Amino acid sequence: MQTITVDLKERAYPIHIAPEGWEALPHAIGESIGDRKAMVVCDQNTYRLYYESVKAALESRGCSVCPAVIPPGEASKSFEQAQALYTRALEAKLTRSSTIVALGGGVVGDLAGFIAATYMRGIGFTQIPTSLLAQVDSSVGGKVAINHPLAKNIIGAFYQPHMVFINPHTLKTLPPREFSTGMAELIKHAFIADSDFITWLEQNIEKLLSCDVGALAHALYRSCSIKARVVEQDERESGLRMILNFGHTIGHAIESATGYSKYTHGEAVAIGMVYEATLALHMGLIGQEYIKRLSSLLERAGLPTVLEAADWDLIFQRMAYDKKNVGSGITFALPTGYGKLEVFKGVAIDDIRQALIGMQHT
Amino acid sequence: MQTITVDLKERAYPIHIAPEGWEALPHAIGESIGDRKAMVVCDQNTYRLYYESVKAALESRGCSVCPAVIPPGEASKSFEQAQALYTRALEAKLTRSSTIVALGGGVVGDLAGFIAATYMRGIGFTQIPTSLLAQVDSSVGGKVAINHPLAKNIIGAFYQPHMVFINPHTLKTLPPREFSTGMAELIKHAFIADSDFITWLEQNIEKLLSCDVGALAHALYRSCSIKARVVEQDERESGLRMILNFGHTIGHAIESATGYSKYTHGEAVAIGMVYEATLALHMGLIGQEYIKRLSSLLERAGLPTVLEAADWDLIFQRMAYDKKNVGSGITFALPTGYGKLEVFKGVAIDDIRQALIGMQHT
Repeated sequence: MQTITVDLKERAYPIHIAPEGWEALPHAIGESIGDRKAMVVCDQNTYRLYYESVKAALESRGCSVCPAVIPPGEASKSFEQAQALYTRALEAKLTRSSTIVALGGGVVGDLAGFIAATYMRGIGFTQIPTSLLAQVDSSVGGKVAINHPLAKNIIGAFYQPHMVFINPHTLKTLPPREFSTGMAELIKHAFIADSDFITWLEQNIEKLLSCDVGALAHALYRSCSIKARVVEQDERESGLRMILNFGHTIGHAIESATGYSKYTHGEAVAIGMVYEATLALHMGLIGQEYIKRLSSLLERAGLPTVLEAADWDLIFQRMAYDKKNVGSGITFALPTGYGKLEVFKGVAIDDIRQALIGMQHT
Repeated sequence: MQTITVDLKERAYPIHIAPEGWEALPHAIGESIGDRKAMVVCDQNTYRLYYESVKAALESRGCSVCPAVIPPGEASKSFEQAQALYTRALEAKLTRSSTIVALGGGVVGDLAGFIAATYMRGIGFTQIPTSLLAQVDSSVGGKVAINHPLAKNIIGAFYQPHMVFINPHTLKTLPPREFSTGMAELIKHAFIADSDFITWLEQNIEKLLSCDVGALAHALYRSCSIKARVVEQDERESGLRMILNFGHTIGHAIESATGYSKYTHGEAVAIGMVYEATLALHMGLIGQEYIKRLSSLLERAGLPTVLEAADWDLIFQRMAYDKKNVGSGITFALPTGYGKLEVFKGVAIDDIRQALIGMQHT
């Protein structure tokens, strides 16, 4: 088991990466788990596959454990599910010293984390992410949220978990498209902060795709380390953390404009990264080779790099709604070289249009 | 205008107490109000009485302002109202740099604060409390919440405002029973931390009840200072802040057991303080004189000090549900002298029963 510490002073917490699997979980839980009451939030799939293992580990540490099972899928990040989980927490008599465990992918982590952040003004929270996307991205950094019918992730908090436990064996049961969506964020981490890791990925991506646990553990360690270092320097996304947003300004707008159904999050981010890199090329920040290496890695990971039949007007409109856009124009985190990003504020819609629609026609 | 600074490091904020009234508000707002978009949350009463004054002050600082009006009363601290305010904030295109202004009593402050804490993971928040209860208590300290059908204030956050502005003239339009409910918290602050302030209140309470603005401003300053000093030392209610809970363990249980309709919050807290002081007497912590002075001040403020026709079993049951009760037994903040409190954990229900029901029969 390898451990990364996210150093946020009084909110510091460990990320454990355990190629040993569940047998390492009791050690990771340790002695300090509040009043030893835990509610494990999972979806129907993670409940079936992993609940018993996690329950046994918690019980071996003296916890009393109850499950809270939600339907799988983004629709569960709703007011209604939140309300149901508050009720379940009250019925289970969770106190401020109890723990909510998120056992699942990003939906479970975001929803359970929002409950942990707001139930009794904040209780214990442990993340056990089981999808690649959650392992490299959403479980690290404390961003939790539910959706509003008009906008995704608009209701949330910055709420750090007390511990993150990553078992890479869970990736073996992940459908290929789900695996690819996580690869988009993993590749993003390499491109924003670690040019050696780009090279490593170019050499080892097939091992990851075939679920070689050693290679996965290595990639997870590097990817989580990059995110941890960024989050440490900017917990509340007021500056540096925006570099994590590479591909997301256009990516979110694509997801929103296509009704969150045509592309997975990672697919939209993959396309978003290629398009934002194209904008960076248009602005003279990077060369053509950057886009080739980025596109090639994304394609090898099974991800799209070109938007099909796009309604650009709708996409531009959605960008203006993004919660990171302060004032007029659009804010982008754009590459300025391998492993380097800078934030550009107030980029005019017309410049973006010219760069992207130009590309569509070439 | 007098100003108290609540020193919470990067979350430090000023509480302005302005006997000058609204004319002091533009100065209090100052230059730094984010992207100059503000949504003012008020109830139908505060909208009618004060919205135009507050809007004018914000506009004089270059803000664009929109109102969000909720029905008055505790029922508005609901999921449904929260959802409606998120929608309103989205429609008004509030960004992370915008400000939500709470203009009203505790219900408006708690609800608007919860929205500010969670909309886009937290945006600007200004409190303009207009009831005595909100001015001395709920607007200072960052506790925001909405209710769950099974339990009050169970969904919330610790979220500090960026500024609190108190105009004591608003108290002139407050119904007497609403004024008394605030007096309960004000008297509580004197008893938990400032024995000189107890004496001042004994000499000046009639001036407060007749809305002498000078006397009110003095009492608000002392009361808010006490709360600010406690909050500074324990922002998240893990220790010291529990002394603010004097009267609330029994008070909350009384409110809950009587369906939140028979007593106002302050009335329940007044009774709760007398009963908790009685428990302290039973435990040999204070003398009989303490209870006499406390009861006398509360009665002069128009507050009840004895519970009518109580269903004690229900009250004891509700105490066990209180979110501050960790583990077995009940946690109390009990007086150990004038201006002094200590936290006692795990007080047995039977001891409480003996102390209180004994008193009922004398």
